[in-house]
Amino acid sequence: MSKKRLIVDMDGVLADVYQQFFKMDEEEFGVRKSLGEVNGKIEREAFKNERAYVFRKGFFREAPVMEDSIESVKLLNDKYDLFIVSAAMEFPHSLPEKLEWLKEYFPFLTWQQFVFCGSKTVIQGDIMIDDHYKNLDHFPGRTILFTQPHNYGHDDKQHERVFSWKEVLEKLI
Amino acid sequence: MSKKRLIVDMDGVLADVYQQFFKMDEEEFGVRKSLGEVNGKIEREAFKNERAYVFRKGFFREAPVMEDSIESVKLLNDKYDLFIVSAAMEFPHSLPEKLEWLKEYFPFLTWQQFVFCGSKTVIQGDIMIDDHYKNLDHFPGRTILFTQPHNYGHDDKQHERVFSWKEVLEKLI
Repeated sequence: MSKKRLIVDMDGVLADVYQQFFKMDEEEFGVRKSLGEVNGKIEREAFKNERAYVFRKGFFREAPVMEDSIESVKLLNDKYDLFIVSAAMEFPHSLPEKLEWLKEYFPFLTWQQFVFCGSKTVIQGDIMIDDHYKNLDHFPGRTILFTQPHNYGHDDKQHERVFSWKEVLEKLI
Repeated sequence: MSKKRLIVDMDGVLADVYQQFFKMDEEEFGVRKSLGEVNGKIEREAFKNERAYVFRKGFFREAPVMEDSIESVKLLNDKYDLFIVSAAMEFPHSLPEKLEWLKEYFPFLTWQQFVFCGSKTVIQGDIMIDDHYKNLDHFPGRTILFTQPHNYGHDDKQHERVFSWKEVLEKLI
């Protein structure tokens, strides 16, 4: 039997971009926001200068890796036909940064498994893990919503919500 | 009725990479190869230092645009849900070059329509135009083989072979 295809998002799933938002926002305004202040808000609302941060050199390259994601992806990579799919095209400078980042933290994956796109509607697979409704809503297969502050508290009946990579593994291994 | 999705390759279909091979090979060895010398051979066999050329800065950025491709893609973009999909991940430096190139020659397309991947098996669509069997052979939809020296003379019964963008338009408009 052929392996099922698993589509894994980068930002907010493998790369902890919120740590970058919190850090840059604090550097700019002098106070570190609490999770309570940003929960349920889209990034742009939660962090006043979010657009400037994501276009800043190093934003993606220096993002910390999400807790337990490396070990989890390693296990999932054995069981599934795994692809990392990132909607990177909006941020042209992010393309080489994201590729370097993947090679640093996920050296056991190959470049054949990476996809940088604008819209994920063109991607086919059996399971998708993502933190954005816009990517999961149109996906015909099984959809796992990775909790991030921007999607917190919103209706998610259509998708299986997880709060950690440990929960992803419980579902998929 | 929703539009059919058309997947268009870059190198050898929109970007005339053979012009780069001929030029760089001539600069290096002093003689310009004829089409007859390279027809039916994979790039690596046809041009001794092909690997060095494709990893050279500017190789993709400075590739000429394929004859009639701009006007053709403009027409097809109205009729189809069009995506440009390039297996760019093998050449990391090519990512920003390819994006700049697309923005220069195809400014009427948006970044939402661009995909850079390693393997095209993850892409879904109804029609694919490509110059490589490895991309067309696994595609479940209609497949159009764009003639390039490396695929010339090979068996192509499975795919519809075209020799120009004019022929593509005859088939798809």
